[in-house]
Amino acid sequence: MELNADLQKYIGRRISEIRLKNNQTQQDIEFLTGIDSAEVSKYESGKRNLTLKTLMKFARALQVHPKELFDFEFDIKKYRVDE
Amino acid sequence: MELNADLQKYIGRRISEIRLKNNQTQQDIEFLTGIDSAEVSKYESGKRNLTLKTLMKFARALQVHPKELFDFEFDIKKYRVDE
Repeated sequence: MELNADLQKYIGRRISEIRLKNNQTQQDIEFLTGIDSAEVSKYESGKRNLTLKTLMKFARALQVHPKELFDFEFDIKKYRVDE
Repeated sequence: MELNADLQKYIGRRISEIRLKNNQTQQDIEFLTGIDSAEVSKYESGKRNLTLKTLMKFARALQVHPKELFDFEFDIKKYRVDE
């Protein structure tokens, strides 16, 4: 269990869920953020290291409060602090 | 209005609120995260650029789900995507 890898996976899944709920395509997100749609796909599958800035670009493009991207089951106590 | 500067300020305030609610000192947070207490103070006053990794260190030290650190009023639509 690696904290950041897991986090990227969960946040990526939320980005994808919200995008689909909004009937937006990855190309729409590319247009709104400047992030190449192939990269959007990688972020959604948790394969890219997310920065807070990128996270905010997605929140803005998806028109949601950033806390929506963290709306998943997550037991922080499972992880050591310095992971 | 600059998206990241505002975000840092709001998240910093949440870190401070939760820390005080937990009766933790900045020194406690230093011990748990390895982040110098003077730096903890700077993060809390929004004067430091937060990365997702640092954010997770705080969440873990405060024993809260990371979405708690985003639990503030925030109208994402006020900001342009590329800010």
